[in-house]
Amino acid sequence: MISPLYWDDGALYMLDQRLLPADEVWLKMESAEDVARAIRDMVIRGAPAIGLAAAYGMALALPERVVEPDGEDEVRGGLDAREQENMNHLFEAARRLEGARPTAANLSWAVRRQLEFASDIAAEGGDLHKALLERAQQMHREDVEANRAIGGLGAGLLRDGDRVLTHCNAGALATGGHGTALGVFRSAFESGLNIAVYATETRPYLQGARLTAWELVRDGIPVRLIVDSAAAFLMARGEIDAVITGADRIAANGDVANKIGTYPLALAAREHGIPFYVAAPMSTLDLELPEGRGIEIEVRSGEEITHFRGSRMVPEMAEAVNHAFDITPHEIVSAIITEKGIARPPFAESLTHLFEGGAEDA
Amino acid sequence: MISPLYWDDGALYMLDQRLLPADEVWLKMESAEDVARAIRDMVIRGAPAIGLAAAYGMALALPERVVEPDGEDEVRGGLDAREQENMNHLFEAARRLEGARPTAANLSWAVRRQLEFASDIAAEGGDLHKALLERAQQMHREDVEANRAIGGLGAGLLRDGDRVLTHCNAGALATGGHGTALGVFRSAFESGLNIAVYATETRPYLQGARLTAWELVRDGIPVRLIVDSAAAFLMARGEIDAVITGADRIAANGDVANKIGTYPLALAAREHGIPFYVAAPMSTLDLELPEGRGIEIEVRSGEEITHFRGSRMVPEMAEAVNHAFDITPHEIVSAIITEKGIARPPFAESLTHLFEGGAEDA
Repeated sequence: MISPLYWDDGALYMLDQRLLPADEVWLKMESAEDVARAIRDMVIRGAPAIGLAAAYGMALALPERVVEPDGEDEVRGGLDAREQENMNHLFEAARRLEGARPTAANLSWAVRRQLEFASDIAAEGGDLHKALLERAQQMHREDVEANRAIGGLGAGLLRDGDRVLTHCNAGALATGGHGTALGVFRSAFESGLNIAVYATETRPYLQGARLTAWELVRDGIPVRLIVDSAAAFLMARGEIDAVITGADRIAANGDVANKIGTYPLALAAREHGIPFYVAAPMSTLDLELPEGRGIEIEVRSGEEITHFRGSRMVPEMAEAVNHAFDITPHEIVSAIITEKGIARPPFAESLTHLFEGGAEDA
Repeated sequence: MISPLYWDDGALYMLDQRLLPADEVWLKMESAEDVARAIRDMVIRGAPAIGLAAAYGMALALPERVVEPDGEDEVRGGLDAREQENMNHLFEAARRLEGARPTAANLSWAVRRQLEFASDIAAEGGDLHKALLERAQQMHREDVEANRAIGGLGAGLLRDGDRVLTHCNAGALATGGHGTALGVFRSAFESGLNIAVYATETRPYLQGARLTAWELVRDGIPVRLIVDSAAAFLMARGEIDAVITGADRIAANGDVANKIGTYPLALAAREHGIPFYVAAPMSTLDLELPEGRGIEIEVRSGEEITHFRGSRMVPEMAEAVNHAFDITPHEIVSAIITEKGIARPPFAESLTHLFEGGAEDA
């Protein structure tokens, strides 16, 4: 199974997704700063994947604990000076990691979960590095399990022969493994459904052309690339049966922040009576945000648009504006596929229900 | 004034638009085959511009006439053997030129106009090469005049401070000069309106990033580039006041074939109550086609998507589908700006009225 990151012998290794599909290079990360920089520079991307990277990054913020011979590891009340120092390191790492990219919910979700967990462990006098590492590994396993659950539920929405469209890369590379939207395609394909995938190339970063195509080709799932703006025409010609994308943050009302260009796909899908599905783990939900307009949309460098492999393609005086995400309003989302079940409109109710432990459609 | 082609001393010169904005190289064309190849390979593109190129190409199909001393140039009935041979050359050139690219109406319009004209001249025993060349030059002048008329009418639809969005390049480079959509922006700017242009980069060929940005920067008109799929998000944020594109072919009911990605822009514009205008000369009208579904949509090589400057960006096994145009249904077109006036819905009536010589809104 493809996973974009793994832990080995005291360090985190990440596949440099900027170089795919031409080269497969693994980078070694030895500090929280390394991880924050890798997230910011898009060595790793995809909301669940950067959440996991940050969870490992929190473990890297602390040194491995040297076992001390006088056995002072017993449980005590309050934090001693060393533990307070450790917590300060963790707060600083959390700030850096959360600040690396603003839009993905999973990033702050993972970081805050690790912080809370660390407070508990520190109060008990446990080994913080070890505990945070084990917790990151557990979150990694759980993410893959969630994606397999999402895949199974989502596959139930597809029929044999379906031509499905996806945007960007919501695949194994964007998660701990298996993927969300691509996880649905994988599960459907594994269960014997003949599906064909249209992948948008996804400008400016070409995650569709470079990453989604790479993953699907490896798995033998038929894939055809199109430019982002061609999707509506294919829908009008009756060549698309369903659209499935991932998500970077989902508000309580079901509004979805995802890769720039998701919104016009959903508009076109509604126009042509094609279901528009979002596949995402519960960690993508942000129930504190009532609606999508509260989601911070990252603005990245215009050079991602004006330059290609370091060479400028557009006139010197022309600038580019580069919003990395857009908001798809809940009214045009057909369903949100999570590991706990499939939420359907009205999402304000169905998402809260899933969050509180109920299952829908499952 | 920028013009993408000019005639000089027995040859046609074309600006190689594939190399802009990095290099300004003019290519010399000495035969109809040269011109057909240049159109097919996109040395020149844009529906009105390839129409003009083909008009000149028809003149290049025939040699310059050597004046004969015995003065046999008098008018006669019927065609002699040499004239019949000339007409055969012209039919062959017409076939090549029309076949170079299928979607633009202006290409077949120009070629057929030259063929009819040649029949008349041949019947009179006139100098075919000279007559066709003069006719091409006249069509070139008329195209610029039409664009200035379109620009003036279109500018009347804009207000001071408007932020306008355009797609692809409907500029001077796509016409004989001044441009259609960009002609509207130029005329508005010249008349003192402060406008700001958002230009989509326009994948896969980047006509927006390379050509539209180049033209607007030269004229000092503010321009910001976005990826094609970002337009809907900007509209949702209230940052676009109007959309104006060109057209490659307009059916009798007002359905518009234009660069792939035009249709989703029109869908998003309707969603947000933003007018969607098409600016095109009457030569783009195809009243023989009742509706857009009859328009042949060119499918170009997938390599335009999978490769960039000769290097492959996507995995070997992944294919790309590359429709060059889409159809925007007339229901979501706010108005069509022609040199004869502004046509408004119902287009079946307003376009026919303009074609028959009436003026609307002018």
